[in-house]
Amino acid sequence: MQALLNDIMQEVQPLIGQGQVATYIPALAKVNPNQFGIAVCDTSGKVTTAGDATTEFSIQSISKVFNLVLAVTYYGESLWQRVGCEPSGLPFNSLVQLEYENGIPRNPFINAGALAIADMNQSRLIAPHVAMRDLVRKLSGNEGLLANPDVANSEFEHRARNAAMAYLMKAYGNFHNDVEEVLHNYFYNCALEMSCVDLARASQFLANRGHCTITKEPVLTHDQTRQVNALLATSGLYDEAGSFAFKVGLPGKSGVGGGIIAVVPGRFSLCVWSPALNRMGNSQAGVAALESLTRRINWSVY
Amino acid sequence: MQALLNDIMQEVQPLIGQGQVATYIPALAKVNPNQFGIAVCDTSGKVTTAGDATTEFSIQSISKVFNLVLAVTYYGESLWQRVGCEPSGLPFNSLVQLEYENGIPRNPFINAGALAIADMNQSRLIAPHVAMRDLVRKLSGNEGLLANPDVANSEFEHRARNAAMAYLMKAYGNFHNDVEEVLHNYFYNCALEMSCVDLARASQFLANRGHCTITKEPVLTHDQTRQVNALLATSGLYDEAGSFAFKVGLPGKSGVGGGIIAVVPGRFSLCVWSPALNRMGNSQAGVAALESLTRRINWSVY
Amino acid sequence: MQALLNDIMQEVQPLIGQGQVATYIPALAKVNPNQFGIAVCDTSGKVTTAGDATTEFSIQSISKVFNLVLAVTYYGESLWQRVGCEPSGLPFNSLVQLEYENGIPRNPFINAGALAIADMNQSRLIAPHVAMRDLVRKLSGNEGLLANPDVANSEFEHRARNAAMAYLMKAYGNFHNDVEEVLHNYFYNCALEMSCVDLARASQFLANRGHCTITKEPVLTHDQTRQVNALLATSGLYDEAGSFAFKVGLPGKSGVGGGIIAVVPGRFSLCVWSPALNRMGNSQAGVAALESLTRRINWSVY
Amino acid sequence: MQALLNDIMQEVQPLIGQGQVATYIPALAKVNPNQFGIAVCDTSGKVTTAGDATTEFSIQSISKVFNLVLAVTYYGESLWQRVGCEPSGLPFNSLVQLEYENGIPRNPFINAGALAIADMNQSRLIAPHVAMRDLVRKLSGNEGLLANPDVANSEFEHRARNAAMAYLMKAYGNFHNDVEEVLHNYFYNCALEMSCVDLARASQFLANRGHCTITKEPVLTHDQTRQVNALLATSGLYDEAGSFAFKVGLPGKSGVGGGIIAVVPGRFSLCVWSPALNRMGNSQAGVAALESLTRRINWSVY
Repeated sequence: MQALLNDIMQEVQPLIGQGQVATYIPALAKVNPNQFGIAVCDTSGKVTTAGDATTEFSIQSISKVFNLVLAVTYYGESLWQRVGCEPSGLPFNSLVQLEYENGIPRNPFINAGALAIADMNQSRLIAPHVAMRDLVRKLSGNEGLLANPDVANSEFEHRARNAAMAYLMKAYGNFHNDVEEVLHNYFYNCALEMSCVDLARASQFLANRGHCTITKEPVLTHDQTRQVNALLATSGLYDEAGSFAFKVGLPGKSGVGGGIIAVVPGRFSLCVWSPALNRMGNSQAGVAALESLTRRINWSVY
Repeated sequence: MQALLNDIMQEVQPLIGQGQVATYIPALAKVNPNQFGIAVCDTSGKVTTAGDATTEFSIQSISKVFNLVLAVTYYGESLWQRVGCEPSGLPFNSLVQLEYENGIPRNPFINAGALAIADMNQSRLIAPHVAMRDLVRKLSGNEGLLANPDVANSEFEHRARNAAMAYLMKAYGNFHNDVEEVLHNYFYNCALEMSCVDLARASQFLANRGHCTITKEPVLTHDQTRQVNALLATSGLYDEAGSFAFKVGLPGKSGVGGGIIAVVPGRFSLCVWSPALNRMGNSQAGVAALESLTRRINWSVY
Repeated sequence: MQALLNDIMQEVQPLIGQGQVATYIPALAKVNPNQFGIAVCDTSGKVTTAGDATTEFSIQSISKVFNLVLAVTYYGESLWQRVGCEPSGLPFNSLVQLEYENGIPRNPFINAGALAIADMNQSRLIAPHVAMRDLVRKLSGNEGLLANPDVANSEFEHRARNAAMAYLMKAYGNFHNDVEEVLHNYFYNCALEMSCVDLARASQFLANRGHCTITKEPVLTHDQTRQVNALLATSGLYDEAGSFAFKVGLPGKSGVGGGIIAVVPGRFSLCVWSPALNRMGNSQAGVAALESLTRRINWSVY
Repeated sequence: MQALLNDIMQEVQPLIGQGQVATYIPALAKVNPNQFGIAVCDTSGKVTTAGDATTEFSIQSISKVFNLVLAVTYYGESLWQRVGCEPSGLPFNSLVQLEYENGIPRNPFINAGALAIADMNQSRLIAPHVAMRDLVRKLSGNEGLLANPDVANSEFEHRARNAAMAYLMKAYGNFHNDVEEVLHNYFYNCALEMSCVDLARASQFLANRGHCTITKEPVLTHDQTRQVNALLATSGLYDEAGSFAFKVGLPGKSGVGGGIIAVVPGRFSLCVWSPALNRMGNSQAGVAALESLTRRINWSVY
């Protein structure tokens, strides 16, 4: 495995730094693009890494997975009355479908869906962003994980589009709490800083039928785990979800911080990170590394 | 003229109370639907009326006309960089087009356009809703005009969809002030209470090349007046603008309070009111009365 | 009037040839862009002209007006069950709205609407393109008018998008005849060649309450005439209808051949022509000439 | 396996006949809804069945898979310049996206995409429907497979919507052959009649890295097989693709004849059939049977 990761890192070396670092908030724009890390965690909890695998980065949309997990534990099947499970076919931050479909977001990984999930968590938890932080601390075994308040505040200042989505859902009766309060929590979750190692460990339960080897506790049932993985497979990579299935063939979730988590069901969870993004908003070197993995050892589920 | 208005009122009698009073806020829902008034103001300022022409009602979207007039006087041609002048072809409160067209509303009479105008007025005026109230007081010669604070507050509580539009425009850089502050002013303007007589007098300048007979002052230039009338003709009646041109043939603007103002350029301004609305959100008896007028004395501009 | 037309022609001189001649079919692409003509016809039938007012050009979408007139005489009010009367808010050749609205085109001046009208005429007439040719021959008093078969055949070869619209309407049950047969007739109508003088005379009845001074016969009723003019005012200039109302303020219809007809109800019909088009597909110098007219002598209806 | 299939058949018994048989063409409408069959083929070619597994039915959209396979063998990677690999998020027969995305269909399993594939096959093959028929005969080992000409002709008569798509792609330069000729071949492929056993065997190569055990020949490369399966997983079940991944978790393709094929990569291909469809156009009892399979023995890939 170590040799494999080294090989892949060497292969994608020319792509590292290619593309654009996210620039919509200053704190993200100043990240050095010439970084790359990868970490693979097997179902026994053993982690293999290459590159900058212990450097922390802003997890951004990867937080949507953990927020969904929180909501699933609180709401179970009833969650799916407020959020769909179909690919959207539109950009992750589009309001068009939300209007045509009466305020029900297509899935939990487009922004509108993640905001509906955040609203659901807000209804059950006093401080949802603390709850999610504590969850990932536990799952990753890293008690030091923190959100970057500068990033969170900066995202809040640039909240206009997310606020528009939240208010549009509210207009359709699918958003129950105060918009600003939910957004505050939502951005704190996006602003969590974790390394490839942290994320590979924190998502290990998805490769292990819902059971976390680190805490030795169930996080989700086996059925719920399959469902989350199915959603990651059909909707995890923004507008590139189909192409990611086509090329990589793993359930996965990306964030504009340049991280991508992926799951080889029954075998591995992994996280790859490189800050420069392709046109679709996914890590350029990260996607390439996962493609290389599939080509080399065929982890594709298909 | 008096005989004509009496005849028309008799003709539409069976339609009065047909349809649905607006119910999205309690203060509007409790209005008695069995009311009807009409007032016609000629270019000398003389007003002829029939029915409940002096009963005050909530002007709602008719306020968009006066807000636009305010903005035109402050911004002139530059206003049209932030709002278009084309019919939208979509419901008045749709966000779809706003997203496809990068936050530039199609025209000032759909909600998004009116909010952009309100934002522009907010940038220039300390208290835009006071400025507009003072404008209509002056134009109508009725110094007692007031907004109904219950209506304004109730609309503010149900602001979700308008807030979504404002935030979406903000996301595109086409909304500069605090969303809640602008909405507060916007709803106060919608909540103004005026009678048919007040509105016929207040819009008389639109029939008089921009010159107000009551104040003996110009409100808009002749060119600007033509432009506002053209917009009213192509976009004044929500999704029914084409049909209104087809059947009535006058520049006009409706509100969910059941009022409709219309302009016979060079000759008359008029206001008809009846609270029960058709499926398109326009006064059922009001539209019928204007159709009857066109059929009887052909005021159509076409 | 002569002096006025001369002045306007001089004013727009710098714009003549600016923009792009339609290039989607070879026969249109080879037209010399440096031409300009204008003709005004009063209600007595007297015509005043300037420039290349007797040069024939391809009337293209202006034929939609005469096809509508034919259909109105055959179907009366029932026509509006198959075609709407609202502005579309989308490009003239879009299929999107047709799908969302179950195959009912928004109005008779977008392509889908004109095709539905052509289908209706096909159901009643053995050779609709002959019937329309004969109608404009009679209305214009020019018995020599002919379609250009090269243009008609070339348009038929490039029929794909119009065929798509016709088939989509057929899928919704709103197209009854053979698609290719209707398109054949439709393109022959578009390929009619007329001069500014011909078109000003042929549309004179629209300025004269439906009565043709040349034939001394009614073409439409007064009510029908108002309705056609209202549609021209709200939907006659493709995506520029609102802007045309705003700047010019007359019912009008443009074609990609560079012609524009306009109506001053009760007073004049006019036709302006210059082949080079603006981004919206309307004659650049033509629109400018009509704006100048409005500015100079205020023929705007608003 | 036999016991498992028997159990499942018993479990879904109450659902058989629930829902609506496809009615848009008479030949499909008269199928007896109270039928159910299932066949599972392992990678050695061994088939286990239950119910009406040898009854032939109209494969309809399942033919899209075999047409794609044909095109992949002729065009390789270059195929993806004309068809995308992303979920569409819109109904399978929508033209909206095609217009917004310049005539490039989102994926090969929506109608527009299948028509583009059919057009590609038409460019390379004299009689594409014979070529595909021969392919499935070979793959299934059933030399007697035939298309039902009544079904094919009836579909051709109801071709309007598919013709609209083909013409719209032609308008964008993404359709090269005669529309009617391509549709003729396309409908003949949809009209092929096969049983569950035939289809399970014909798709066995998808479970076997592209290699057909029956013919002992490669059909696709391993990479191409993964890609086709990935597309089936993200886009194979119309608007229900996400939900099918969520509930069943297998690459699959449904047809309005009531058949569904599914693939357990590396292990099994299967086909389930029951003619009555749910609201999404997928076999009601068929989807339920696959859900039951997943629940009982967890074949989900996720």
